[in-house]
This record gives sequence, C-alpha cells and structure tokens, in this order.
Amino acid sequence: MRDKIILLGHGSGGQMMSDLINDVILPNIYTDGFFPEQEDAAFVDAPPGRLLFTTDSYVVDPFIFPGGNIGDLAVNGTINDLAMRGGTPIAISLGFILEEGLFIEDLKTVLRSIGCAARDAGAHIVCGDTKVVPRGRGDKIYINTSGVGAARDGLDIKGANARAGDVLIINGTIGDHGVAVLSKREGMRFETPAVSDTAALHTLVDDLLNSGVETHTLRDPTRGGLATVVVEIAEAAGVCVKLDERSIPVSRAVAGACEILGLDPLLVANEGKVIAVVAGKDADKALSVMRAHPLGREAAIIGEVTQSPAGRVTMTSFIGGSRIINRLPGELLPMIC
Amino acid sequence: MRDKIILLGHGSGGQMMSDLINDVILPNIYTDGFFPEQEDAAFVDAPPGRLLFTTDSYVVDPFIFPGGNIGDLAVNGTINDLAMRGGTPIAISLGFILEEGLFIEDLKTVLRSIGCAARDAGAHIVCGDTKVVPRGRGDKIYINTSGVGAARDGLDIKGANARAGDVLIINGTIGDHGVAVLSKREGMRFETPAVSDTAALHTLVDDLLNSGVETHTLRDPTRGGLATVVVEIAEAAGVCVKLDERSIPVSRAVAGACEILGLDPLLVANEGKVIAVVAGKDADKALSVMRAHPLGREAAIIGEVTQSPAGRVTMTSFIGGSRIINRLPGELLPMIC
Repeated sequence: MRDKIILLGHGSGGQMMSDLINDVILPNIYTDGFFPEQEDAAFVDAPPGRLLFTTDSYVVDPFIFPGGNIGDLAVNGTINDLAMRGGTPIAISLGFILEEGLFIEDLKTVLRSIGCAARDAGAHIVCGDTKVVPRGRGDKIYINTSGVGAARDGLDIKGANARAGDVLIINGTIGDHGVAVLSKREGMRFETPAVSDTAALHTLVDDLLNSGVETHTLRDPTRGGLATVVVEIAEAAGVCVKLDERSIPVSRAVAGACEILGLDPLLVANEGKVIAVVAGKDADKALSVMRAHPLGREAAIIGEVTQSPAGRVTMTSFIGGSRIINRLPGELLPMIC
Repeated sequence: MRDKIILLGHGSGGQMMSDLINDVILPNIYTDGFFPEQEDAAFVDAPPGRLLFTTDSYVVDPFIFPGGNIGDLAVNGTINDLAMRGGTPIAISLGFILEEGLFIEDLKTVLRSIGCAARDAGAHIVCGDTKVVPRGRGDKIYINTSGVGAARDGLDIKGANARAGDVLIINGTIGDHGVAVLSKREGMRFETPAVSDTAALHTLVDDLLNSGVETHTLRDPTRGGLATVVVEIAEAAGVCVKLDERSIPVSRAVAGACEILGLDPLLVANEGKVIAVVAGKDADKALSVMRAHPLGREAAIIGEVTQSPAGRVTMTSFIGGSRIINRLPGELLPMIC
C-alpha cells in the first residue's frame, strides 16, 4: 500500500477500505495462522456454560507512550475486565475510529502490539470495524475492544462480596500508567521516567483462583485510580475499608513525578494492577501466590475490611493519622486510557 | 443531574461519571426491569452451541436525522450484522466516546432510542463504557456497539456460498439512509424528504430461514451501498452476478435527490436492507416470505448468479445496455453511519 497516511476513503466501505484491511490491518495483527472471515459477524466456539462480555473504548493521548501504546493497552484492558470476574478470554473485537492524516506506519505499530497482546493471551481477534473521521473530529486513533470470555462455573466475583475480615492485596506499584502517559504528553523528562504498567492479568488471576484462595472481589484500578475503586467496593458491599498508606507500593519515579505535578498517586490510572479482596485467613497464601507471578513480585497487603462505617474508606497515613478517602470527583487527567 | 452539557469529568471514572451512568444513562436505556451490574464484565447466559460476535462503531453526522439517530442506528446495525449470519441477538455492549459540550438532552434522546431498539429486538445491553474527549477531538457522540448472538446449528451463511443459478433479492428500496443523512447534513429541503431505513432485520431473516428457503448469502448493504456488497459476494464466491437496474427499488425521494446531488444510489448506504442470495428454485417463495414481513413489502428480485466471468458484476440498464459494476473506490459520503 503506497499511501502513507489514512484518508477518508479508507473508511468508505469500498476498495480503499478493503485494501487497508487486507494489506495493513490483517497482516500486522495475525501471524499465527488465524485469519478472520470478512463477514458481518464471526462464529465463536465457546465452551458450554456462562459467558462474560465486556467493552471499553480507548482514547489515550499520546497513543504511543513509555511501556506500550493504545493497541496493547486496549487488548490488555479487555482481557483484564474479563479476568476481574474470573473469566478466560476467548474472542476480542476491534473497532477503529481513525482520524484522517494518521500515519500508516503508526497504525502498523499499534496493530503489531494488538496482535502480540492477543496472541500472548491466547485470544483471537475475530471481528473488526474501521471508521475514518475528517481531521479535527478525532485524535489520530481511538480503539474499542470488546471481549467474550468463559466464566468459571459457580464463581461470582464482584464488589458487593467484600466482607468484614477480608484483606485487600495489590499486585504492585500504583500510578505508573497515568504518570507515564502524562509525562510523555507534557514532554517532561525525569531522571527515572515512569513506564506504563499495561499488562494482561488473567494468568495472575488464574493462579490466585486455582490456589483455592477465597477470593471475594477483583478490580483493576484504571481511571479514577486505587482510591476510586476501593470506594466503589466499600459502597457496593456496605463495608468499611481501612487502607494503610505505608504499605501501598509506589515507585520512586511515580512518587517524584506526582510530587512535582501535584497529583495524588491514589487517583492516578493503572493498567496492569488488580486489587484482590480475599478472606483474611488466606491473606498470606494469596500474597505468596501473587509474588510468585511475574506481575506480582511487589504484591502487598494494603488494607482490611471492617463492618462499619458502611461505605467508608479511611487511610492511615505515613505519620500515623487517619483520613477519609473519596473517589475521584471530576476530571484529573483526560484521555489517560 | 443539573449539568446541561457533557464535561470532561463525566469520563473520569470518578463521581461525575458514576452520576452520569446512574442518573442519565441507565434510566434512559432500561425501562423493562433489566439493570446491569456495574462490574468490569457482565455474565451472559448463552444457549449451548456456536455463538456469533460482531462490532461496529458509528460516527454519523448529524447524529439525529430523519428516521432515527445514532442510537437506534447502532443497535439495529449490530443486530443486523448478527442476523446476516443467521444469528439471534443475545447481548449488546455500548461504548460511548462523547465530545465535551454535548447537550445531555441530546444524549438522552439517543439513549432512549438505544433502549427501544434493544428491547424491540429482545436483546439486553449488558455492559458499557463512557469516554469523554475534549472539544475538537470528537464530534458530539460516537458509539461502538458489539453484539453476541446465538448461531443456528449447522448453518454457515456467507458470501462465498453464492452459486450459479441463485437469485438476489432485496427487501426494499435502496439509498434511503445515505440520502436522509446527507440531506439533513447539508440542510437541503426536498418536497418528499428521504427518511433513513434504519431497522432491525433479524425477524425478517428468521422468517426467511424458517420457511425453508435455501439461503446461501445474506448481506446488509451499508457503507459502499448495494454495488459494493454485490461485488464482494461475486469475488468471495468466484461467480458472476447480473443485476437488472429496472428491478432495483428506488424511492422517488432518493432518485430525485441522487440526481440533484450527482450520487449513484447503488453506492449509497442503507441501514435496513438485506440482500439475500437464495437458490433459484426458491426465488418465488423467498419473495413472498419477504413481502409478508413489514420490512419486506417492496422486496424484489434484482439479479441472478451465473458461472462466469468469475468475480464480475454487470448490470442491465433501463435502456437495455449492460455495464460493469465496481465497488465504491474511495470516499463518497464520510460519516454516513
């Protein structure tokens, strides 16, 4: 394909779009022999039993950032949404909204990351859609990924299941994704730059669930950060969560950048983190299972669940005081994922 | 909710987004008692057997047009993509990319149409996502809908199945959607204005398949229009399709507007039309089944399939001549769906 940029015709449904799909999109996504039919819908062979279904659109700016790009971000994000309910990814859909003028080389970079992320997770991208909008009505590239996954029999992991006596565990440092994207966007240079933590968490979750740890809730703290997700859990379950600031892992790079930028790492987006709420009796076991996984080496117990006050989250600070934690009110960092 | 427009904070993942979801989105979509859990992924009870999966993003401008809006357009489009492979809709996902400044009243209009379209089709919207982009990086409202459907056992309807001796049937007039959107966009007034044909075709398809008509291919001619889809079928199946211009239904409104605008109705988008390629022996039966359905009253046999030249589409014109039909090359009407 000789065109160097995306033109409106690439979204026309006609010959140019067909060429884009066949010459650019499919060859860069698929290298493992799987080639989707170009029909209106794709057949999916799902195992018997309940399924999981999720969707997310990605509008991150810049769309290429330290540690990843919008492509693996989207695929990993969808895999993680399935994993947070104990699901295994089966099929992923891929919807592009491209802005006229996008460099096709940049699109290829994104496509290759999509292919890698999907293959790594054992999920096929089975269907897709490409729209092109005129300059000034998009921002280079937006992606929607939806995912179908297989659910575990009889398992209903959700926010409302958290209960007094549980502990909260996170698999590593917080704030890395948000700080990495923001630093790149603003052209800031730090001695130790933050790198996005974008990663697929389904094997970590599998290890946890297969170990027999009594797991009540799993949530990935993306937009809104750790604080927002913990408040959601406390409200959904009608319990109180007490966090301990000293135990929450924050990298030196993120801590430094947040201080300079005036950001609270508790409110900054993560893309490869899970908060697991597990029965207190299984706390040590859960911690060691997580730490044995490459994505959980810095796992830590960060808080506990108590009966009351219901819906309240508090945090013991470094200096020993306690304060109430609220969810993110409005906008902190637009277009962060 | 007192806000009158969408603000960046509505896409933050925090309190404002939670309020938007609970106060605006869910109440306007759901009036039948179905209320999705606000978890990362939704459980779906699918019947045993193969599933169908499809995705489409919608960027139509203007997003409210004669005959519908981007909301029912999106839901119907996803239902139709499932129907084109013989599928019945089960679950639909809903991903919004909203531009800062969108009127919340307009969002409500779209949401109500989404709810109606989903309910009419017996499909639940089970999961969703809302992103907000700053002014000038979107166009009021973009929607992605993905759909999971149940496939019919043993049925594999696809473009490659068309064969010599088949006939092509369409369920009604062509070009209505594209002309309706374009007329509204350009502020053109016609004596008889075109109205979008947006509609869910799954019950029409069900009637056809249940009747026992030997159905080889079903395709909805959206972007790229009738011509592009017929060329795709001819190429996929390695057959020749001979269309008869005199038999292709075109409303007076569309014919007139296309003449003034210099458009070929064969290349204009439809959103409630299906091209059925059926065995020649079942042509009359298929036609009468379609005509008995409210969405097929103007159904017509528009062409036939022959052996060769493979991949070629020709059309006999009103005056008797024959010309080669090509798919839409580049862009005709950006942001038409």
